[in-house]
Amino acid sequence: MLRGHNLTGYTESAKGDTFLQAFSPVTQTNLPENFTVATNEEIDTAVAKAAVAFNLYKMLPAETKAVFLETIAEEIMALGDALIQRAMLETGLPEPRLTGERGRTTGQLKLFADLLREGSWIEAVIDEALPDRKPLPRSDLRKMLVPIGPVAVFGASNFPFAFSTAGGDTASALAAGNTVIVKAHPSHLGTNELVATAILNAAKKCNMPDGVFSFIIGDGEVTGIQLVKHPGIKAIGFTGSYKAGMAIYKAATNERETPIPVYAEMSSINPVLLLPNKLKQDSEKIATQISGSVTLGAGQFCTNPGLLFLVEDASSEIFIQQLTEKLAAVPAAIMLNQNICNNYYKSIQITAQQQGITSLFAGNNAANELKASPALMQVSAADFIANPQLQSEMFGPATLIVKCNGEADLLNAIQSLHGQLTGTIIADAADIKNFSECIDLLTSKVGRVVYNGVPTGVEVCHAMAHGGPFPATTDARSTSVGADAIKRFARPLCLQDCPQEFLPDALKDGNPLNIMRKVNGSYTRAVAGEE
Amino acid sequence: MLRGHNLTGYTESAKGDTFLQAFSPVTQTNLPENFTVATNEEIDTAVAKAAVAFNLYKMLPAETKAVFLETIAEEIMALGDALIQRAMLETGLPEPRLTGERGRTTGQLKLFADLLREGSWIEAVIDEALPDRKPLPRSDLRKMLVPIGPVAVFGASNFPFAFSTAGGDTASALAAGNTVIVKAHPSHLGTNELVATAILNAAKKCNMPDGVFSFIIGDGEVTGIQLVKHPGIKAIGFTGSYKAGMAIYKAATNERETPIPVYAEMSSINPVLLLPNKLKQDSEKIATQISGSVTLGAGQFCTNPGLLFLVEDASSEIFIQQLTEKLAAVPAAIMLNQNICNNYYKSIQITAQQQGITSLFAGNNAANELKASPALMQVSAADFIANPQLQSEMFGPATLIVKCNGEADLLNAIQSLHGQLTGTIIADAADIKNFSECIDLLTSKVGRVVYNGVPTGVEVCHAMAHGGPFPATTDARSTSVGADAIKRFARPLCLQDCPQEFLPDALKDGNPLNIMRKVNGSYTRAVAGEE
Repeated sequence: MLRGHNLTGYTESAKGDTFLQAFSPVTQTNLPENFTVATNEEIDTAVAKAAVAFNLYKMLPAETKAVFLETIAEEIMALGDALIQRAMLETGLPEPRLTGERGRTTGQLKLFADLLREGSWIEAVIDEALPDRKPLPRSDLRKMLVPIGPVAVFGASNFPFAFSTAGGDTASALAAGNTVIVKAHPSHLGTNELVATAILNAAKKCNMPDGVFSFIIGDGEVTGIQLVKHPGIKAIGFTGSYKAGMAIYKAATNERETPIPVYAEMSSINPVLLLPNKLKQDSEKIATQISGSVTLGAGQFCTNPGLLFLVEDASSEIFIQQLTEKLAAVPAAIMLNQNICNNYYKSIQITAQQQGITSLFAGNNAANELKASPALMQVSAADFIANPQLQSEMFGPATLIVKCNGEADLLNAIQSLHGQLTGTIIADAADIKNFSECIDLLTSKVGRVVYNGVPTGVEVCHAMAHGGPFPATTDARSTSVGADAIKRFARPLCLQDCPQEFLPDALKDGNPLNIMRKVNGSYTRAVAGEE
Repeated sequence: MLRGHNLTGYTESAKGDTFLQAFSPVTQTNLPENFTVATNEEIDTAVAKAAVAFNLYKMLPAETKAVFLETIAEEIMALGDALIQRAMLETGLPEPRLTGERGRTTGQLKLFADLLREGSWIEAVIDEALPDRKPLPRSDLRKMLVPIGPVAVFGASNFPFAFSTAGGDTASALAAGNTVIVKAHPSHLGTNELVATAILNAAKKCNMPDGVFSFIIGDGEVTGIQLVKHPGIKAIGFTGSYKAGMAIYKAATNERETPIPVYAEMSSINPVLLLPNKLKQDSEKIATQISGSVTLGAGQFCTNPGLLFLVEDASSEIFIQQLTEKLAAVPAAIMLNQNICNNYYKSIQITAQQQGITSLFAGNNAANELKASPALMQVSAADFIANPQLQSEMFGPATLIVKCNGEADLLNAIQSLHGQLTGTIIADAADIKNFSECIDLLTSKVGRVVYNGVPTGVEVCHAMAHGGPFPATTDARSTSVGADAIKRFARPLCLQDCPQEFLPDALKDGNPLNIMRKVNGSYTRAVAGEE
């Protein structure tokens, strides 16, 4: 069924003479289908179509776009078990995880459909004219968010659905009124193609303009960077490694005539503060939670807890023992691909060789089965602070305990941390008071603070911030998950003294969309222009 | 009275051995005071103090910050006529312009004070826990905007108050809860120092932490870039030339270990579409308006209309004659400094030499008096499209007419335009309908569309967007004027399952700040957490 072709809008295209094959971590073989890498000309075609389609698509009513997003969700479901089976083959992820992730992906599309129908996300602001103001009258000024143009999306290896072809970046960019070009992730080419086909089927059913969505095959270094540098691309959504993310960031900010925004979610080790009172009370339960979070999905989550900060005392020693036992009991689990698996064991090895590191547990090296065994190490705060290498992500089920000698030591260790997606506080009320300075400092370095839970499990909702200071992302002002992800792909536009009949509905006096607006400084759904 | 010293927080400091002097375009001499360029050590001190102060300042209640902003406004007014006189001497701007700009500056500080008191700008979002949700319960998730840290501000030559030491960047960064370091503009060093002193007096009166504001003397290339590259700086506000803005952008995005956001407002030629029906009806009046806007403040506004698009017909010829006469009647006006004046005449000369350019009027070269005479040129759409040099800003009272042979020609000319702060539409309802494609295209390239007015005159209000696609700014997602300028210096922070007592007031169930929030997807000021 798979064709292995690029999809430049509604047109299948395979003009190139180089090919990629997907690899299955399950069978440890390349899968048979050849995927034809996009040529320069095909990339140009996709971008040109995206630009033309943008001018039509952006004008469509919110309801039409909402139905398109919902239809994408339906078409993904209509792929049925074939999609799940292909994703299992390409990623080694278990079926329940993939059906769950599919549900999250369709739920995400529906969230944005609801957001479009509600409509207030465009932040309409109206300041009415003040013709009698002295010394000068004020014009009528109205502002709203508008889409920006074709967006290039690079999916993640670890979420073949939710951060991939029809994932959060694509859904939010389309919702904002932009057209999208996805570069397929080489790790799950077949899964990508199936989902791309679903999106295009939905586009056809909804009479969307040719070019509203395109699908490009290729690697990151060449095809990906070509796409990033293309003058027709107006923004980038990316989830993946620090190295790839920074290559995109540099190309987008310094190798284009016109720099563009890059939303790259890259690298986070998600520190956890295990504070003494709480740890004493609930040691065993916390060890179970942390062990589960570290090993969930073979540790292949961007929010995987890779650093555990402990204040040394008798309870912390008991906890370390409990955690060691629990991790040792977790069997090796299959990883997404060979590269990730090799890098995992290499990163453990490099960490283990650093000054002051003690290995508490290391499962067998199961790289020959492409499986990751858990690993647990520890280090003193002083050695941690002295060595930034210990902040390199070990992508997989490994974590590092940092033992701190009291609050000051903990504060210094937190001070040395880079930016993170999440920070977790395991604490009772007394701990929160006693360690408030540490918690404030950690908070200043992360996008989300989790109290007495685990960082894995990212809700798709209005209040989510899945982002954080560099190097967690290239843009701490944004979230890649949840409703506000839509704002990454929009910009404010102000209209001054525009006649009512030519105003967009969102800015008309009568508020025909019934959205929440800021009128003369006050939030209201009321009509404007009445005394 | 002027000391010529850096102000690292509350401490005067002049350790360096190189000096700058302000130049007066009025007397055409250097002014006597020596301003001591900041040393590396002084920059380090300012940033270190800003970091310490940030941790205290960000925790202060909104009301305290609001009073601080208002006190800055009071202290600026308390400088009295001495400030206006010094600014006149350093900029050559006339007194009414400067008293007006001072009013705008204090008004801006008060707008942000009001915004803080109202409080909803922080975008509080609450998604309550769903403990019974299947298959998994949902945590309680709450999100708000938080400040980011020390912000470096680079003021503009053309607005010694409103885009300078206590201008929109400083006001919005302080309002968001950040500390600020201003690098003085070499063009008005004394004015900068006076205002910096006013800010620090206000800070003392309001018991602000030492380091909430610092003032650094130096040029852009060395001192400015040092500041931009300092690891303690978290964002940049800049208004000025394309060259200086891009040097800052490149340093901030590619020469730092941690890239930071740069809000640089740089270069815009503010195209005006003069559409035929309207032009026929109101030719004389429009010529008066445009002439006034082109020559206002010697043409030294970022929103100065530098390009006039006309559809050729009998009326357009009449208009051109009228505009030529009106511009010819405007006397030469003093410019801000020698550099700007020399560049103005040089830019006219370069433009005049381009293929197909006809000079319609060029006043005497009054560079020896540091004065700018108006200039008017015209070119065909075809020659305009072929030559990007014609999109270089002529900073001063010059403008270029682009004559288009019908709508298609106009559309092509607009297509070739770079990003702009503003686009102006002079049109009646029939024009707007007839040229809707042209208007849509122009709209996609600008931050603000002005209907039947002039682009100069930027309101400080809620609905303003003073920004626009590159190269108008480095960040089209932002505005540097108006209430939303505050959002440039904040980022979202999500708190998951944080106990009520430790939540910030903005996110507490009871909504003690009575702000507008998004609770479970709906906008409300109601308390949360009740069934």
